Amino acid sequence: MILTVTLNAALDLTYRVDRLRPQGSNRVRTVVERAGGKGVNVSRVLHALGHQTVVTGLAGGAAGSALRRDLAAARLPEHLLAITGETRRTVAVVDESAGDTTILLEPGPVVRPEEWTRLLDHLDRLLPSAAAVVLPGSLPPGLPEDAYAQLVHLAASHRVPAVLDADGAALRSALAAGSALVKPNADELVAATGTTDPVAAAGALREAGAASVVASLGADGLIAVTSHGSWQARPPERLAGNPTGAGDAAVAALTLGLVAGTSWRERLAEAVALSAAAVASPLAGDFDPAVHAVLRERVDIRTLSNVRSLCCP
Amino acid sequence: MILTVTLNAALDLTYRVDRLRPQGSNRVRTVVERAGGKGVNVSRVLHALGHQTVVTGLAGGAAGSALRRDLAAARLPEHLLAITGETRRTVAVVDESAGDTTILLEPGPVVRPEEWTRLLDHLDRLLPSAAAVVLPGSLPPGLPEDAYAQLVHLAASHRVPAVLDADGAALRSALAAGSALVKPNADELVAATGTTDPVAAAGALREAGAASVVASLGADGLIAVTSHGSWQARPPERLAGNPTGAGDAAVAALTLGLVAGTSWRERLAEAVALSAAAVASPLAGDFDPAVHAVLRERVDIRTLSNVRSLCCP
Repeated sequence: MILTVTLNAALDLTYRVDRLRPQGSNRVRTVVERAGGKGVNVSRVLHALGHQTVVTGLAGGAAGSALRRDLAAARLPEHLLAITGETRRTVAVVDESAGDTTILLEPGPVVRPEEWTRLLDHLDRLLPSAAAVVLPGSLPPGLPEDAYAQLVHLAASHRVPAVLDADGAALRSALAAGSALVKPNADELVAATGTTDPVAAAGALREAGAASVVASLGADGLIAVTSHGSWQARPPERLAGNPTGAGDAAVAALTLGLVAGTSWRERLAEAVALSAAAVASPLAGDFDPAVHAVLRERVDIRTLSNVRSLCCP
Repeated sequence: MILTVTLNAALDLTYRVDRLRPQGSNRVRTVVERAGGKGVNVSRVLHALGHQTVVTGLAGGAAGSALRRDLAAARLPEHLLAITGETRRTVAVVDESAGDTTILLEPGPVVRPEEWTRLLDHLDRLLPSAAAVVLPGSLPPGLPEDAYAQLVHLAASHRVPAVLDADGAALRSALAAGSALVKPNADELVAATGTTDPVAAAGALREAGAASVVASLGADGLIAVTSHGSWQARPPERLAGNPTGAGDAAVAALTLGLVAGTSWRERLAEAVALSAAAVASPLAGDFDPAVHAVLRERVDIRTLSNVRSLCCP
């Protein structure tokens, strides 16, 4: 079982409007309400691929209840911990004429110190059943800055590899705790290292403590810097669609590869193909199985031989 | 007690953002969640003025529960009827830099025929305690087009005067049922009659069956066409602020005047002053008591002698 931890889960609302008129009054044609947050998206992808997964993290209030009902409807097992605060909503306003989307992100609930302590106890009970734990996304207000570092240490105490997809202070503090894999995107890489060369930046994150680093570069695919070598994996073509959830699909594939011990080339091909298949699907956490099946055979993978010197003596 | 019926109640969310970036990702600074809908706003104003009022109508789902909790917190008595559908949300995105607001209106829940029948029974039990019933706002999907006409007839069977604030087909079908008062705005007047002169249009609505017509003309105040005469009432100055809820404040004042049997001049002065005091308050359903106290003495009221011939033989 792969455990995903969503600390700042969300109830994602998608509003479709004929044409968004800023400063105006807009009638929403259809409303879709769905459990969201990066960990939830990762679990959705794992579940759709037929793998066992459990969603955990924090959920509260009416939005938290709606989120749980949606997970139950999707038959996604969850052991979310109830908190006093109200789970945030996100609103994606899809302009049907222009074909673009405006996103509104509520701030997360303020998590109380005793709720964080209870979550650590809760994970202590869930981790023995986990083959890997995925720690993705932002931290809600009230959590300690080193929350992910504490979770990586807790996972290590159970010998469970941790996959981290975070940014800023949460990422920096967790690196030294020794994650099995970190997956920043291009912006997060630059922000965390001050280096604009993604391969050099990924090497720097390895030096700071991550066993492997896979960075997502949008349409340019992924680069991986690992103890076994470094690669760039690119999709054979550029796909139009919704990029939200593409990173989560990559994390799902990379975590499966980690658990199964497949080759890095295979992991990266899967990650790029699933990512592209997620872009081709309108909802975050979903992917287009036909696109996945075609692209996994056609991902372009090149060895980046020159980076060994940057990272691993 | 004044009964307000909100058939398409809403949970109103107010999102404050530093600057709204359409097509972008926007972090919401603060979220305020509040029971809304025209009837709820009317009851808030009546309650704040120290009058007895009961909120009724339809509410369902998580948003319906949140709406009821907010009414309880505001100590506003409610006898809302539970429905299977989900009460709609509205989202007002306030751009703090530009000082403007973008509004998103979810469609209402689909009301089942048996729920409508249950509401009629429910109102049949509430109406004997009511001195007047206020029927404001849009109809949710699933209700018959003559829903307001049925409610006006039901009120009449209990000898309870009905105040109607509706538009389009809902307004037209209810006129013949004989409301004590209808309060369209300028756009609704034109749409209902095809006449651009508001006084002539108000006269036409009287001829169609309304005992009195008061039309709200925004910054130009109100015009009243009644069996006792016709007047225009204007605020002494133009106030900046949030016009949402201004019409509901006018309805509250006019309904109080109807129940108390005050003079039309007094009713109109109260309606214009409360309306302006509502504009001066940031939230729909609230009003600024200081603005109300000052303006009620300063409303300009003129007799419109030339309209008698248009409406009342």
